[in-house]
Amino acid sequence: MTNACLPIGLPGWAAAYDDTAAHVAGDEARLRLAIELARLNVEYGTGGPFGAAIFEQASGRLVAIGVNSVLRLGNSVMHAEMMAIMRAQKGRASHTLREPAHALYASCEPCAMCLGGILWSGVRRLVCGAPAAAARAIGFDEGPVYPESYHYIEQAGIEVRRGLLADEAEAVVRRYRERGGVIYNA
Amino acid sequence: MTNACLPIGLPGWAAAYDDTAAHVAGDEARLRLAIELARLNVEYGTGGPFGAAIFEQASGRLVAIGVNSVLRLGNSVMHAEMMAIMRAQKGRASHTLREPAHALYASCEPCAMCLGGILWSGVRRLVCGAPAAAARAIGFDEGPVYPESYHYIEQAGIEVRRGLLADEAEAVVRRYRERGGVIYNA
Repeated sequence: MTNACLPIGLPGWAAAYDDTAAHVAGDEARLRLAIELARLNVEYGTGGPFGAAIFEQASGRLVAIGVNSVLRLGNSVMHAEMMAIMRAQKGRASHTLREPAHALYASCEPCAMCLGGILWSGVRRLVCGAPAAAARAIGFDEGPVYPESYHYIEQAGIEVRRGLLADEAEAVVRRYRERGGVIYNA
Repeated sequence: MTNACLPIGLPGWAAAYDDTAAHVAGDEARLRLAIELARLNVEYGTGGPFGAAIFEQASGRLVAIGVNSVLRLGNSVMHAEMMAIMRAQKGRASHTLREPAHALYASCEPCAMCLGGILWSGVRRLVCGAPAAAARAIGFDEGPVYPESYHYIEQAGIEVRRGLLADEAEAVVRRYRERGGVIYNA
């Protein structure tokens, strides 16, 4: 499969949200999109309770979205953040989102893989909703993420804002457990 | 691009190594394949000096290979390890490589993203060649990886063996600098 292609398609319901002509101003409104994607991913049963969205910082243009798709796409890399990064880079035909400056909004604090992936993506800003503890509380492993990990990515030039809209973001994570969602990485 | 596909094709020269009928016994011989892939990726100018290979532990069957393809594929996630994981899971049509047990061989110690990605992949064993310091020495950032990060993945049940064939693995990393290879994440 030398010339293989890997599916990174969104679930059908998400097409309506994948509007790269949309412009959204402000951290709260942008993060609310990521949380809404997480909520719908749970309600439609299409994956874990995590959503992400990448915007151009200055213009507010929506560049890409992602929802947790590990089970749906049979790919352990397909966390919401990684999906959004790969879709954004595909859209730009570039391995970096450095110019113009982009920001990534994640409904929940990223796991170890995604925190590293965000560092390499070129985004300049990370805004998260629910704490990683919310994911751990329902049984998800978040991997080796430490306070130093956040210091590291801030030192590398990424602005980080955590805990915004945490209550509504955390409610989505809890809702996944209530619906009996699979903990695929425990 | 709701139904989008993401290219995960190997460079043309690598097709000859992508033989999923091959069987290889022993850590050294398996790691040597990962190092050879890294070396050829440098010599052919198709990417960074990093290679990876995933084998079924018991049978020694080669399941998937990967080479650093960040610039070639325009995708910051496409480190050798992540490519091998995604190709292996695609081949098995499953988000986990847990059964039967698989081992991942990496020509250089994984960056923060790949270490997390390895944890979620389901592989039970990680064998690495060059130390992360070798990549840092030529200017690559490895991200937030700490001694605790390795303890964490070992606690999670992954056997780790580091520093095997370190000299030849490190020589490939140095060769990349000699050839003027691009440091795409500095």
